[in-house]
Amino acid sequence: MSLTLSPLLNIPIIQPGDDLATIILQSIQTSQIDLQDGDIFVITQKVVSKAEDRLVNLSELTLGERAKQIAVEIDKDPRLVELILRESREVLRTRPGSIIVEHRCGFVCANAGIDHSNVKGKWGNPDDWVLLLPEDADRSARNIRDSLVQATGRKIAVLIIDSHGRAWRLGTIGSAIGIAGMPGLVDQRGWEDLFGYKLRITQVAAADELAAAASLMMGQAKEGTPVVHVRGFPYPLREGSMAELIRPKEMDMFR
Amino acid sequence: MSLTLSPLLNIPIIQPGDDLATIILQSIQTSQIDLQDGDIFVITQKVVSKAEDRLVNLSELTLGERAKQIAVEIDKDPRLVELILRESREVLRTRPGSIIVEHRCGFVCANAGIDHSNVKGKWGNPDDWVLLLPEDADRSARNIRDSLVQATGRKIAVLIIDSHGRAWRLGTIGSAIGIAGMPGLVDQRGWEDLFGYKLRITQVAAADELAAAASLMMGQAKEGTPVVHVRGFPYPLREGSMAELIRPKEMDMFR
Repeated sequence: MSLTLSPLLNIPIIQPGDDLATIILQSIQTSQIDLQDGDIFVITQKVVSKAEDRLVNLSELTLGERAKQIAVEIDKDPRLVELILRESREVLRTRPGSIIVEHRCGFVCANAGIDHSNVKGKWGNPDDWVLLLPEDADRSARNIRDSLVQATGRKIAVLIIDSHGRAWRLGTIGSAIGIAGMPGLVDQRGWEDLFGYKLRITQVAAADELAAAASLMMGQAKEGTPVVHVRGFPYPLREGSMAELIRPKEMDMFR
Repeated sequence: MSLTLSPLLNIPIIQPGDDLATIILQSIQTSQIDLQDGDIFVITQKVVSKAEDRLVNLSELTLGERAKQIAVEIDKDPRLVELILRESREVLRTRPGSIIVEHRCGFVCANAGIDHSNVKGKWGNPDDWVLLLPEDADRSARNIRDSLVQATGRKIAVLIIDSHGRAWRLGTIGSAIGIAGMPGLVDQRGWEDLFGYKLRITQVAAADELAAAASLMMGQAKEGTPVVHVRGFPYPLREGSMAELIRPKEMDMFR
């Protein structure tokens, strides 16, 4: 009857090429977690991107005219702007220092999710290295999930999250960017309320609610706890994907 | 090291005039929860509004011209539109069936948070009764918190939440609307990352992350679990308020 979120301990700093499923399995063993059907692992995007070697060196980019122009307008490194444009389908808004885009994968976020912090780089000036989001975070989640299911025989899910800003509210919250083995949305339309009225519009973004919950246990600065083990998720597991959570453009009043 | 969210059991259907703090204390006793400093109670808006008798009968409203006009434009009950306008400072967008507003209390939400479901009404046609948000949900949270602290001697917090839709994404998530005794935002600017870089922009909307987490354990339909007990919130408790979470209009690109 309770929802419990526990950071996995003893996760090392992730390097390009690391196998996250193996690392998670080792942590489960040393933490003596007895996995159960229905358990979920929530993983921060940054370690998935590192394991997948999504590091890019800004000094190797050729700049386009549009990147140069936006960079001047918003006072931002034109190389970073170039990379943000390459990772995006559409620019929604710009303001000094940041660009709100529709990412290649369909969701809206700032600066295409490209991050400088906790990135060490491989050679040269460390300031030149940035980390892109996973190429396809649903696929990343499925790969990790498949390995975990195969190794444990348990019916478990994997959720990859990132910290997103919001319209209208300050501060970031954990948001889903890759889903495997759990619902993105839970559709409660037609369920009856206390007095027998049918709910008309309730679709719960269950994966985003769990993303926010797990984000609380990850912190932002030290990347010490990039994986959170979840027990007691209240909805049945099923296949799922990010596509469930993305509002079609023509239904969006805020683009 | 874990975050645990447990719905309180045996909460009766709340009636106007009920004292929520007393009802929560009774549930804590029968559930044999041993309260600790740092525990938080997350409460769904609907039971707070009911206890505060925020029921309104639509048939008693006098309609203004603006409500009549919008009601035609978006095909919605003009009485409900009138009430939404009265509860709001500004209309951001309209679309068939719903109005996105800045609520009197400063946050942005659909239809001023006014709800039909799980509302029984007092007399006449039950369809004529709707429930407004609490007059001042920060104050409601403080009142409940003060009673709980006085009765238990523990340093605890209270968070009142509602289900909100979002720009860009489908589905609702639990969002803070009233805060007492805990941070709305946690400011991590200046903290160092793994490699000694300073984080530049990270402010975590910790109260919204907890709101989303607790919402998972409340469900939407039957209102069976309107209060969730939280243990293990990872940030220090302090005084807090909704004002921390509201993005100033002039800094908002999506209004």
